[in-house]
Amino acid sequence: MTAIKIEPLTRKDFAEFGDVIEITGDTASHHINAGTTQRFHDLATVVATGEEARPIISMARAQPFELPLSLEMVERHPNGSQAFIPLRPTRFLVVVAPDENGKPGTPRAFMATPGQAINYFLGTWHGVLTALDAETDFLIVDREGEGNNLEVFNFPEPYLVEA
Amino acid sequence: MTAIKIEPLTRKDFAEFGDVIEITGDTASHHINAGTTQRFHDLATVVATGEEARPIISMARAQPFELPLSLEMVERHPNGSQAFIPLRPTRFLVVVAPDENGKPGTPRAFMATPGQAINYFLGTWHGVLTALDAETDFLIVDREGEGNNLEVFNFPEPYLVEA
Repeated sequence: MTAIKIEPLTRKDFAEFGDVIEITGDTASHHINAGTTQRFHDLATVVATGEEARPIISMARAQPFELPLSLEMVERHPNGSQAFIPLRPTRFLVVVAPDENGKPGTPRAFMATPGQAINYFLGTWHGVLTALDAETDFLIVDREGEGNNLEVFNFPEPYLVEA
Repeated sequence: MTAIKIEPLTRKDFAEFGDVIEITGDTASHHINAGTTQRFHDLATVVATGEEARPIISMARAQPFELPLSLEMVERHPNGSQAFIPLRPTRFLVVVAPDENGKPGTPRAFMATPGQAINYFLGTWHGVLTALDAETDFLIVDREGEGNNLEVFNFPEPYLVEA
């Protein structure tokens, strides 16, 4: 099995796959509500295309995986972005792959740390929601609508994702 | 000052103002990702209308208020919904008011408990983001676009919101 090493999740390294939603020292902000709240504006755009499409908010309760893990497939959504936001500070695993002529290339794995969330761009190949350590509730912001919004790719041989 | 008593936040009582985003015993769900994740689908719709409009994800860092509090104003957004989701399990205060001929009627106050989040419908009069107990980070799902998306109403006399 080919091994995939887990990388830290940074905006720069994740830029081709999606948004990292987080507050860092250099995240632009402005004050609202008479100064009681600091707003970090427009960290991700929600995209929902196609017939009868609308952006929706859902929740997910995810069982934890253990590392190392066997990566057997990735999926993508041709009609919308998809954001996953953990509802308590926690790490979780983010697996993506570049597109190569309609198929995923070699996957990359990123470790989201407490305070980080992600938004996959429309069409980004990605692994399933991968909580670690404990059952975790996530907020999902994605798409409802007509038509098929799911493509799945099963790797001929699984990858091994390891810390 | 007229006193406003805080009510529990339930889907039924909040239905005219917005969505309560939460997992309860009767929240419909289905399994995804080979059974490792339970998805509670479509708990809220994100609305972003008007010129150059797009739904966006932002974050907010909110300073806590203390109860009882003086409610001096409410606001509403004529071009979009607005969701607030705390990023750790916590209570927070949700103040809304019915519309009466373009002005807010008597406000109502709801206490969101750990695990609850809300999405104001387009046009719902509401108070500012009101964390309690401690500084709290929230996810915001609302709108970016052209045109004025904010109306503010200052009450002639403040209300007192009390537990």
